[in-house]
Amino acid sequence: MTTTVRTRVAIVGAGPAGLLLSHLLDQAGIDSVVIDQRSRDEIESTIRAGILEQGTVELLDTIGEASRARTVGHRHDGIELRFEGEGHRIDFAATVGRAVWLYPQHEVLKDLIAARLAAGQDLRFGVTAEGIENGERPRVIARDAEGNPLEIEAEFVVGSDGSRSVARATVTGSSTGGYFREYPFAWFGILCEAPPSSEELIYSNSPDGFALVSQRSDTVQRMYFQCDPETDTAAFSEEQLWDELQKRVPGTTLKQGPIFQRDVLRFRSFVAHELRRGRVALVGDAAHTVPPTGAKGMNLAIADVRLLAAALGALLLDGDERLLDAYPETASRRIWKAQHFSWWMTSLLHVAPDATDFDRRRQLGELRTVVESEHGRAYLAEAYCGWPFDA
Amino acid sequence: MTTTVRTRVAIVGAGPAGLLLSHLLDQAGIDSVVIDQRSRDEIESTIRAGILEQGTVELLDTIGEASRARTVGHRHDGIELRFEGEGHRIDFAATVGRAVWLYPQHEVLKDLIAARLAAGQDLRFGVTAEGIENGERPRVIARDAEGNPLEIEAEFVVGSDGSRSVARATVTGSSTGGYFREYPFAWFGILCEAPPSSEELIYSNSPDGFALVSQRSDTVQRMYFQCDPETDTAAFSEEQLWDELQKRVPGTTLKQGPIFQRDVLRFRSFVAHELRRGRVALVGDAAHTVPPTGAKGMNLAIADVRLLAAALGALLLDGDERLLDAYPETASRRIWKAQHFSWWMTSLLHVAPDATDFDRRRQLGELRTVVESEHGRAYLAEAYCGWPFDA
Repeated sequence: MTTTVRTRVAIVGAGPAGLLLSHLLDQAGIDSVVIDQRSRDEIESTIRAGILEQGTVELLDTIGEASRARTVGHRHDGIELRFEGEGHRIDFAATVGRAVWLYPQHEVLKDLIAARLAAGQDLRFGVTAEGIENGERPRVIARDAEGNPLEIEAEFVVGSDGSRSVARATVTGSSTGGYFREYPFAWFGILCEAPPSSEELIYSNSPDGFALVSQRSDTVQRMYFQCDPETDTAAFSEEQLWDELQKRVPGTTLKQGPIFQRDVLRFRSFVAHELRRGRVALVGDAAHTVPPTGAKGMNLAIADVRLLAAALGALLLDGDERLLDAYPETASRRIWKAQHFSWWMTSLLHVAPDATDFDRRRQLGELRTVVESEHGRAYLAEAYCGWPFDA
Repeated sequence: MTTTVRTRVAIVGAGPAGLLLSHLLDQAGIDSVVIDQRSRDEIESTIRAGILEQGTVELLDTIGEASRARTVGHRHDGIELRFEGEGHRIDFAATVGRAVWLYPQHEVLKDLIAARLAAGQDLRFGVTAEGIENGERPRVIARDAEGNPLEIEAEFVVGSDGSRSVARATVTGSSTGGYFREYPFAWFGILCEAPPSSEELIYSNSPDGFALVSQRSDTVQRMYFQCDPETDTAAFSEEQLWDELQKRVPGTTLKQGPIFQRDVLRFRSFVAHELRRGRVALVGDAAHTVPPTGAKGMNLAIADVRLLAAALGALLLDGDERLLDAYPETASRRIWKAQHFSWWMTSLLHVAPDATDFDRRRQLGELRTVVESEHGRAYLAEAYCGWPFDA
């Protein structure tokens, strides 16, 4: 017995992109249904990274969700680039008058879920999308938490269902079709109970590879070091992990504490060949993934949503399809800038396994060119804090 | 019968670096002898590129040689980056308040040779260096224009003898020892009799590859297009050459005229492993070569000379070796920034034969990031016009 639900916009995936989209549509008076195959608890309890661009925080502000990013989160006015054993601060305030906020993605999700449910949003957890039928009245074919068939019939379907998107095939014709790049290294990440080793994030280039000294909160720290993608998380003792991290951050003594999570993050760059077909569009990781260096993933998803919410408003309230027609081209401009920035930060800081002596010296020459130039520092800071949204 | 000449500094190579060095040493009251295996006519009549950084022109100014760069040459306050059929001006004046001068290298050489000879410089053409003996009193072993043995005994020897340097082996222990990178493309260059196609240089990225629309004078133009390194210069008719150029510069109609020279320029990046050993040092192309994109070659040679002239002054007038000891490290800082910039301009604008669709889109994303940002434009302009000299 199939249950059919009717709404104006069906949103597949309750990540930051899907939840924010439902919020923006609601503000415009457009109903939506959001489904996600995960449970609410699973979504809210997975500790995730989170550097919010200034524009992302400002967008969350306008819908009353960002107070906790500004109060519970931490504003960061700079990062440190470290190479040849010396730290060089990229001062966001001094160069571009902007900032980022350290506020983990799972906290953003908790805020958005609470706000959406309080507003009466039809938000269904444990619902697995199995396919999408495109057309004048597109439908999401799904199964609910009990395994019963569920169909959501809408005027538009948005795939915000992450890198293993089910919606993508409906748009691109295949689940993988896209521009793609793999990297010959990964990040070994740890979570540990310790105070911050540094007030701001440290992006460290060393002969042994890259390390990132990041934070989650005042008592939990996140650190990463460059490793082979095939590295086994069990291959290191805690002491060995600290040694690996410490030797990649010469000049700063890391504050150690019990390591309670470890993982290996593979790097890939991906952009779907198409972002919209007919009455289905993609946003966020369903449309593109970036390597984590530079923290563009969630921010880029939010930027997509900002464009798509306006386009759906024009379509569904005014019958004007022009913004929607322009969406792939408009979104692509920022996507490819963010793809470039993520690739650049990765290339600037990591040591490629096949790097020659020339490559290594050139990389140090590039790092020096950037940090010694107010224009270089501002160029990096502007991208890190987020380019202005297109008019 | 060997002729022996004694001087304080023996300079091998009468390019811009060697001639300028003899000039700066003379101003400090230090005698030198300059030799070059080429004839004066050969040096002065080979048409060469020439974009002078502002600091290069200012350095030439202080010795009374740059009047012609400023009067006969042309100040350029910007360049155009062209991609996806649209031009984007990098405005040097607006971004960094600096400029470059278009003044071909052979004109700089004519000025320097005339000035050096007028000042009584011992400047010998047609003299081929065969080797250098290092030591407390280093010697250049050479043959004069008639094939007779000639030795120059000095307190210091400088190798300014270009990319096929004889002096290099004395410093590095081998004629090739260095950091090295080759590129999978070259430039097909033409010289033609035509008026300029554009007031400023056009650096054009296109799906067919890179092209540079450059100038030599009001009546002679220099243009280049990306080609395979194995390309035969005779492989194209004039009409085909114009077609190849024109399709790489969409949006601007090139002004055609008789093509009177054609050549293929291979690309390489090279930095010698050592820049000084004992009483012998390297400057300019003998120490390093860069790909031509971004026009750093001659300017970097001039920057080396500025440092080495000061170091030799301290050594020979005050017996203070500290600046000379610091020369390799001090010079290397600028060398690796210039190596990076030349690599970057090359990577930013050329289409690598093995570029994937992802690489190509990322490249366009990078070009867009640079031209849409005042900081990106300033970062590029600052490097193009030349970083400030180290204090």
